[in-house]
Amino acid sequence: MANKVKEAWKAGKAVVNGWLAIPNAFSAEMYSKAGWDSVTVDMQHGVQDYLSCVACFQGIQLSPATPMVRVPWNEPGIVGKVLDAGAMGVICPMVNTAAEARALVQYSKYPPAGTRSNGPIRAGAYGSSGNYQKTANDEILVIPMIETKTAIENIREILDVPGIDGIYVGPSDLSFSYGKEPKLDVEDPEILAIYDMLLAETGKRGIAAGLHNGSPAYANRMIQKGFKLVTIANEVGLMVQAATAAVKAARG
Amino acid sequence: MANKVKEAWKAGKAVVNGWLAIPNAFSAEMYSKAGWDSVTVDMQHGVQDYLSCVACFQGIQLSPATPMVRVPWNEPGIVGKVLDAGAMGVICPMVNTAAEARALVQYSKYPPAGTRSNGPIRAGAYGSSGNYQKTANDEILVIPMIETKTAIENIREILDVPGIDGIYVGPSDLSFSYGKEPKLDVEDPEILAIYDMLLAETGKRGIAAGLHNGSPAYANRMIQKGFKLVTIANEVGLMVQAATAAVKAARG
Amino acid sequence: MANKVKEAWKAGKAVVNGWLAIPNAFSAEMYSKAGWDSVTVDMQHGVQDYLSCVACFQGIQLSPATPMVRVPWNEPGIVGKVLDAGAMGVICPMVNTAAEARALVQYSKYPPAGTRSNGPIRAGAYGSSGNYQKTANDEILVIPMIETKTAIENIREILDVPGIDGIYVGPSDLSFSYGKEPKLDVEDPEILAIYDMLLAETGKRGIAAGLHNGSPAYANRMIQKGFKLVTIANEVGLMVQAATAAVKAARG
Amino acid sequence: MANKVKEAWKAGKAVVNGWLAIPNAFSAEMYSKAGWDSVTVDMQHGVQDYLSCVACFQGIQLSPATPMVRVPWNEPGIVGKVLDAGAMGVICPMVNTAAEARALVQYSKYPPAGTRSNGPIRAGAYGSSGNYQKTANDEILVIPMIETKTAIENIREILDVPGIDGIYVGPSDLSFSYGKEPKLDVEDPEILAIYDMLLAETGKRGIAAGLHNGSPAYANRMIQKGFKLVTIANEVGLMVQAATAAVKAARG
Amino acid sequence: MANKVKEAWKAGKAVVNGWLAIPNAFSAEMYSKAGWDSVTVDMQHGVQDYLSCVACFQGIQLSPATPMVRVPWNEPGIVGKVLDAGAMGVICPMVNTAAEARALVQYSKYPPAGTRSNGPIRAGAYGSSGNYQKTANDEILVIPMIETKTAIENIREILDVPGIDGIYVGPSDLSFSYGKEPKLDVEDPEILAIYDMLLAETGKRGIAAGLHNGSPAYANRMIQKGFKLVTIANEVGLMVQAATAAVKAARG
Amino acid sequence: MANKVKEAWKAGKAVVNGWLAIPNAFSAEMYSKAGWDSVTVDMQHGVQDYLSCVACFQGIQLSPATPMVRVPWNEPGIVGKVLDAGAMGVICPMVNTAAEARALVQYSKYPPAGTRSNGPIRAGAYGSSGNYQKTANDEILVIPMIETKTAIENIREILDVPGIDGIYVGPSDLSFSYGKEPKLDVEDPEILAIYDMLLAETGKRGIAAGLHNGSPAYANRMIQKGFKLVTIANEVGLMVQAATAAVKAARG
Repeated sequence: MANKVKEAWKAGKAVVNGWLAIPNAFSAEMYSKAGWDSVTVDMQHGVQDYLSCVACFQGIQLSPATPMVRVPWNEPGIVGKVLDAGAMGVICPMVNTAAEARALVQYSKYPPAGTRSNGPIRAGAYGSSGNYQKTANDEILVIPMIETKTAIENIREILDVPGIDGIYVGPSDLSFSYGKEPKLDVEDPEILAIYDMLLAETGKRGIAAGLHNGSPAYANRMIQKGFKLVTIANEVGLMVQAATAAVKAARG
Repeated sequence: MANKVKEAWKAGKAVVNGWLAIPNAFSAEMYSKAGWDSVTVDMQHGVQDYLSCVACFQGIQLSPATPMVRVPWNEPGIVGKVLDAGAMGVICPMVNTAAEARALVQYSKYPPAGTRSNGPIRAGAYGSSGNYQKTANDEILVIPMIETKTAIENIREILDVPGIDGIYVGPSDLSFSYGKEPKLDVEDPEILAIYDMLLAETGKRGIAAGLHNGSPAYANRMIQKGFKLVTIANEVGLMVQAATAAVKAARG
Repeated sequence: MANKVKEAWKAGKAVVNGWLAIPNAFSAEMYSKAGWDSVTVDMQHGVQDYLSCVACFQGIQLSPATPMVRVPWNEPGIVGKVLDAGAMGVICPMVNTAAEARALVQYSKYPPAGTRSNGPIRAGAYGSSGNYQKTANDEILVIPMIETKTAIENIREILDVPGIDGIYVGPSDLSFSYGKEPKLDVEDPEILAIYDMLLAETGKRGIAAGLHNGSPAYANRMIQKGFKLVTIANEVGLMVQAATAAVKAARG
Repeated sequence: MANKVKEAWKAGKAVVNGWLAIPNAFSAEMYSKAGWDSVTVDMQHGVQDYLSCVACFQGIQLSPATPMVRVPWNEPGIVGKVLDAGAMGVICPMVNTAAEARALVQYSKYPPAGTRSNGPIRAGAYGSSGNYQKTANDEILVIPMIETKTAIENIREILDVPGIDGIYVGPSDLSFSYGKEPKLDVEDPEILAIYDMLLAETGKRGIAAGLHNGSPAYANRMIQKGFKLVTIANEVGLMVQAATAAVKAARG
Repeated sequence: MANKVKEAWKAGKAVVNGWLAIPNAFSAEMYSKAGWDSVTVDMQHGVQDYLSCVACFQGIQLSPATPMVRVPWNEPGIVGKVLDAGAMGVICPMVNTAAEARALVQYSKYPPAGTRSNGPIRAGAYGSSGNYQKTANDEILVIPMIETKTAIENIREILDVPGIDGIYVGPSDLSFSYGKEPKLDVEDPEILAIYDMLLAETGKRGIAAGLHNGSPAYANRMIQKGFKLVTIANEVGLMVQAATAAVKAARG
Repeated sequence: MANKVKEAWKAGKAVVNGWLAIPNAFSAEMYSKAGWDSVTVDMQHGVQDYLSCVACFQGIQLSPATPMVRVPWNEPGIVGKVLDAGAMGVICPMVNTAAEARALVQYSKYPPAGTRSNGPIRAGAYGSSGNYQKTANDEILVIPMIETKTAIENIREILDVPGIDGIYVGPSDLSFSYGKEPKLDVEDPEILAIYDMLLAETGKRGIAAGLHNGSPAYANRMIQKGFKLVTIANEVGLMVQAATAAVKAARG
């Protein structure tokens, strides 16, 4: 049950991450074979729920990509369920304080590090037998999203919470909370300065910083900058973009 | 219940057609908004069945695109069901003889033109009330696929079957049946000569010829050549292609 | 595994039958509790497929109603599957000849009466253990639909086919095939005369005649006339009718 | 993305609202065509979850009705998800205090009015491009349910919370909390007096009052009284009521 | 709507309980016919969500077993929904304090005992008409899980909360929280002493104690010991165990 | 895309095969990990349809087992669809004549060996790129079921049809057609003599004989006898059997 994202990070490498909004296992399976290091089921803004997440995990695990999830909210029921289903990383939206970060860690880790309930119905069937409960706390990544002004103000306390493996930046919500237009691939200097600060603070603590991107070019630039987990849009966005271009080109 | 594909053909225009393999209404809805004139649910090679077809039709009809279907086989049960669900065109694989073409027309048309059973459970709710049964035979397109050597040998008899509105060419099966490699966007002169013959024979009879394409550029070339219904790959293919390119570009 | 429809018929009673077009077990469950003697899943014109039929059967069997099915077509695969799922009666569309009626009986009965394959995955779990295969041929109703001019011309041969328990008349298709407007609750004398003939011919042979109706009043009249299986519209039709009336009444 | 319910309210008109308990897009689609101004997916007491809500929204949007939702609980995860899916109004059960009302507004509005996270996966595809985030706070209705004695005691503080567009009364829970029998279409003077007070208090503040009704006649009376959003039962209730009547009438 | 589990407890009998992790109504139906007194849908660690729970309830109710549920978390939205769907007992994980136990009772009971909202969409269709709301508070079992050291420390206060009908012990979480290996069928003296204490304390108060077991033999031993609700593994575990044995035996 | 069943047969080994009746990917996934060489989705008597078959294939392919299918009937549409979905073997019921066997081969093989249409939507994504169409005819097993007296009478002609890789015996249908009780694990000498004949005739031609069994012990005996593909019951049967035993043992 070694987590390949964690291994990549240990080796200093950046991880290119896919993002699933379509609640369908076939779609997830085909998309996951495109070369991603990890693929994340987006239960917050994607058209996903718990059972579609399980189905997508099955699709993802038919490829070499590591299955992760963005939960809809920092709530113990759903965090436990997606971990039981086999998530190797939990990205959690709107973590604004150290208390919220500690709660997320509690929900995600078995005792004594946390209060996760035992019963890895699907997750336990992977990896060496009987070993899951012993390695889960180490292998599964806990990744709060940093996407508000409040979170930025509390960033040091959040990052100091034991059990946090990385952070994930949501650029459009972050911009929104600073009174700016909500968008990806920002060039706003104030936001870019925040990115620099986040890279510095995570770097000091040996944890990873991730970022949601709108385009591969921007994602590549952010890898250069030091982000270790970069996502590009989502599968439905790429599909619609490709379809729109195909229609135009076919019409000539 | 006017069929916009039929109207486009009457106006001499080519129709750019989408193709759905993912059995999901949300995916179908988003994809259909990309500008297609029509979108076809592929029940033959797509991961689609009857209920997913109904769901995809709902997604398609939230866009301006005309909903069509490729049935899995020339069988009266399924032809009737997809028409009742609201298909405005039926593309049928592997129609190799005039008898098979006549059967397809029979399954697709109400008496006296055919033997379709009355009960347009969903289709009847669209268009002006009570009118569906009076206009369906005229408005719904019946489109046999021409994709074998046998079909080519019988082409004139097939095209002469009353009720056929067009044909749709499956290039990879056609190539396969001529002992060639099965592929789209063919440049093989023998196959291209068949295309010319099909365009000539359909043109004579005032019916449309359609073609499945692998790329927008080839589709555009085929519109220039005279094809009136061009499809580009399918939505899952476009998505995987875009994802593969995005991963590569992000890695740099 | 006694079939209550069969028992009612033996007692000379008419059966009031529900009709399911919505592919949902909860909807089927609630609707089935409304007092129907039997409820039929309409796989031909309803928005139903095999798995939704199984789900609806579960809903129906939570009420006292007997579960039946209208198959999409006279095809051995689907007939076998719905029987295995627990159908206690099979209504089959468009049976126009004795040969077609014989085929339907073959598909529906175990050897030596027919060629149905053994494997009642769900049906076998009901009734006394191990008994299903011994009683199925007697208890399950085989009911061809008589709904074309051709069928009327062949009616005596069709009714003479051993194993036929009743017929079911589709008024709109019957009218259609006689060049009339396709509708339920017909008053056309030619069609009504056909009903009289069908009641006489089935009566002679001790088998039941059924009819699809658009309104309860007409259904009641047809019970008086001698029909032993009367359906009223379908659940979605009743719902939309009630909703339309409710909206109007609320607006005043 | 203009909200027709809001426009009706501005014009002083009452809105007749449908209510969906059946988790099926086809059923939702047919029901929504019955003439409702808006149709609400009931995720609290209906047999609905998030994915069935999305499916029902697709069905609703194939009619002119405005899609709304009753969320299962005042919880940020689900409020965000249904808004992203395209809800134009959020009815929230059991809002008993101003603090709870403020929380609901926070979950429902983008910054700076609230803390809704950006990512309108399906909602953003409707309305003019890029405009969704700018208009959502104004167009989407936030409607707490007033259905307990506590809520009545706190009503002025609740109604004064900025961002509340209306209230929705649940008569059976309200009666229950006052120690009365839980029922719709109440004639109890104490409850009717509460209705008068609610109409007066909402009227003063220029916001709408809504009510759940059991019959069209009562709904009509309540429109006369001043309620601006009236629902009549739900679709499964209307269906079962109609079915029960049909069975009785058919039996004669 | 008499609850057979409650009746068994009144009669001093132990209840043998099934456990569903597979989100499928057919599987639930077949499994429930195996002789269980009750069958519980496991929404916490099972691959279940709300709609699969409803489907499984339909399957369970086709057998004599009483339908119960383990909710994913102590949260009012989901507790209300599963009760509306027909749960006759609610097992709630991780109840560690009297306050949490009181919250669970509040969510589960109608006024004045609690704050459950009225709308038993499916549950109300069972039992004598109109009676559901009058009997639900008495008939539906509220069963907190006792599975942490904290819960054991607070056990008397928890058990004293009015409305608690029993407790359910999760052995692996309990062991985990005491720093032991998380497992079922424990022989650890410290844990067994806790069992004795729990049996004594529940016995004094006339409420039932339940236990999750890994094997029938251990479950039988625990019945002897005084547990009144014993579960054996879950259906998928039994299936995989049987399959593994079958493969080995077939290979010889 | 090497077929491990084929490889086992080449090596003279028997294959132990699982059988899926539950239409659920999670259930299929867990069951497939139990050690089977191959797992077959039963679309004939199982509660399976095309989309559930695809889901089960995803579950199976998360284990080392080879995915196969029993189609509902010898029909080109469904044979093509399950092959496109990734079936590595097609077991077809009720093949009674050489003509039927030839039809099955035609449906299952690409030109020139057959008439299968090109479009391996999911199957093509496995194995080395672009290679699927070149290897499919060799790697995919075509296995008619021999389960009637007629088939036995035509056995030599059936076995001589080019492209047949093996046969699969359905003991209960075979017994049924000989006027015997339909059951598995038969000891009837007439049927056992037929088994000997089938083993001899298949052996002569170098093709495999398979058998459906009710118990591991009988399956093991049949391996000794020479059968090369043995199935034991199905997953739902094993589950119910295990559950029944567990209930009894728990009660003591």
